[in-house]
Amino acid sequence: MSPAKSHASRSNTGRDRLVQYERMRGFQFTLGKTDKTTRARTGIIHTANGDIRTPAFVPCGTQGTVKSLTPEELNTLGVQLFFVNTYHMYLRPGIEVVKKACGLHKFMGWNKPLMTDSGGFQIFSLGAKITDEGVEFKSHWDGTKHMFTPESSMEWQAALGSDIHIAFDDCTPYGVSHEKAKKSMERTHAWAKRSLKAHKQGALYGSIQGSVFEGLRKESAKFISGMDFDGIAIGGVSVGESKKEIANVLEWVTPLLPANKPRHLLGVGEIDDIFTLVAHGMDTFDCVQPTRLARVGTLYEKQSQIDITKARFADDFGPIEKDCSCYTCAHYSRAYIHHLFHVKELLGYRLATIHNLHFIHRLVDQIREAIAKNQFLDLKKEWL
Amino acid sequence: MSPAKSHASRSNTGRDRLVQYERMRGFQFTLGKTDKTTRARTGIIHTANGDIRTPAFVPCGTQGTVKSLTPEELNTLGVQLFFVNTYHMYLRPGIEVVKKACGLHKFMGWNKPLMTDSGGFQIFSLGAKITDEGVEFKSHWDGTKHMFTPESSMEWQAALGSDIHIAFDDCTPYGVSHEKAKKSMERTHAWAKRSLKAHKQGALYGSIQGSVFEGLRKESAKFISGMDFDGIAIGGVSVGESKKEIANVLEWVTPLLPANKPRHLLGVGEIDDIFTLVAHGMDTFDCVQPTRLARVGTLYEKQSQIDITKARFADDFGPIEKDCSCYTCAHYSRAYIHHLFHVKELLGYRLATIHNLHFIHRLVDQIREAIAKNQFLDLKKEWL
Repeated sequence: MSPAKSHASRSNTGRDRLVQYERMRGFQFTLGKTDKTTRARTGIIHTANGDIRTPAFVPCGTQGTVKSLTPEELNTLGVQLFFVNTYHMYLRPGIEVVKKACGLHKFMGWNKPLMTDSGGFQIFSLGAKITDEGVEFKSHWDGTKHMFTPESSMEWQAALGSDIHIAFDDCTPYGVSHEKAKKSMERTHAWAKRSLKAHKQGALYGSIQGSVFEGLRKESAKFISGMDFDGIAIGGVSVGESKKEIANVLEWVTPLLPANKPRHLLGVGEIDDIFTLVAHGMDTFDCVQPTRLARVGTLYEKQSQIDITKARFADDFGPIEKDCSCYTCAHYSRAYIHHLFHVKELLGYRLATIHNLHFIHRLVDQIREAIAKNQFLDLKKEWL
Repeated sequence: MSPAKSHASRSNTGRDRLVQYERMRGFQFTLGKTDKTTRARTGIIHTANGDIRTPAFVPCGTQGTVKSLTPEELNTLGVQLFFVNTYHMYLRPGIEVVKKACGLHKFMGWNKPLMTDSGGFQIFSLGAKITDEGVEFKSHWDGTKHMFTPESSMEWQAALGSDIHIAFDDCTPYGVSHEKAKKSMERTHAWAKRSLKAHKQGALYGSIQGSVFEGLRKESAKFISGMDFDGIAIGGVSVGESKKEIANVLEWVTPLLPANKPRHLLGVGEIDDIFTLVAHGMDTFDCVQPTRLARVGTLYEKQSQIDITKARFADDFGPIEKDCSCYTCAHYSRAYIHHLFHVKELLGYRLATIHNLHFIHRLVDQIREAIAKNQFLDLKKEWL
């Protein structure tokens, strides 16, 4: 069933039809080529703010900025969309401010697609009190108490005006019993229904939970796939699970997902994860890793990474990576970037972030091309 | 006497002639228009790395970077040259590293003029032990002991490869007795001779000291003016002296300076100082103020400044300054910049720095134009 059809099936009133039209106009997924031997696939997610060619890496702009960079620089790097955390925006600057600014796009000066999360992931690590109603938590800024529910998460994501929203879910912590994971999954499903009901504009992805338990993950995949979401998010995978477990979860879940909806993997996207995710049919994936590593001086190279803060780079006048075409590598030496980190200069974090984001975007570009040419496994072999 | 002539007068051997040729080729000052009623003047400093239209503001790139910005951004802002501190470069990354990089220009990726200081100013605040030989001090990084002399300062500035060097001087602290100021001035003069003798390449500015004492300042101005320097620096003015005292020093000193040599005021350049400096015939002046203020959220406006961290800017969606044509004002609201500062995001410091540097460069552009049209005092009245 196409997203358009599925929307049509539940729209009866004039107002519903208008909403449906807005959502249709704003959001659609076109499946491209699927790899012969894996589940890797290309596609295009159409949004009101532009297209996203998939697979696509989604950098994190946690607090309403991809740390240190301007929108123009993100554009140059080939960033197609980025991720903003509803929890962070809710606390600072506050939803009302972004609303007055006419949404995140205008507030930040970014005119391409944006994705927001439900707010769930962050608040579960803040001594949160979870009830069937929602989650009560304390602000990491000032300790004040706040409450998130499926309804408020939908309202706030709509106010932020992102193109892709995530349903409010109970983000199961790692290492819990089957019983607890089941309860958490069931709550996620109840909240998925409430999210869908409360959701008004933008595309909405349902979130699959179920921890590391095959039965639960499959049950959740079927349940969420059966609902009228625009896309599917897989949650609770980045919370301390091993690489092997991530692959397991994807192995169980992906075959049960509808082919015609885009899939997002929440919070996973280290270099060596990317081939696994894509091979299992993920279309988009967000991860703080490339930008976070950059800010501590860990810089990507093909099949490895370097710690630019090490003394051996003090008089190394080559670029971070030979043949890299990023702005940083075209203009600066390892020695200069080492110096900037050594004396804690802001420009260092910026140049490092540019390199790592360039690196991961070029990798994902290559993956897209390889899938289109049926050479995905060859590329994987070349890289890993 | 033109700089060319003055060089010729002390060049006898073939090697000297070669050095003289290099210096001439690299450095020359063309006096432009002088204001009718004040000493304000325009000019062009020609260097091997390009021309500097004066009056010119000189931003600080203390540690080998104008904090948070790339050379391309500095170019766009109209930055004509910037200042790098020899003391900082000496400690990190170390002179040898910059030498291996073939100088600061290549190391930083900046292909326009650069100015370095003698290293003196910083080390005097580090529990330094001053003898006639030079200054022994402790590194602010690790407390290790180091020694700067006129000879080493010249050697290191040459290795850094800046276009304009400053002679090593005894930077008189504020509030000392006449006797101490005199001794310090005499040492500065002795070191000026040694600096000139040791200096090999690049343009060299002699430094005038003498604290707040009219007699000493005049004596120093005459002494330094009588020597074979390419330009004149006025030192020891920023060290805690009041605005009135700065004007006094300039009032005493400037009439004694040769018109055909460029003059630099060390460490002074707040907005309301600039008209004073220019009125007293200063050609260039460096100051950390615009960039330092930017990083704490203090942003320039005509006739005032705002503290963007204040709560009242949280939902102010106008630009920092109406009609400002800088990148920041063209793209971002006060509310967004307030948010970035509120959550300590790197982009905030960068956007603020861009605005303040744009502001001060446009002001100095206007001053240059006004002098050329004999409207300097009108412009001053309009601004102050």
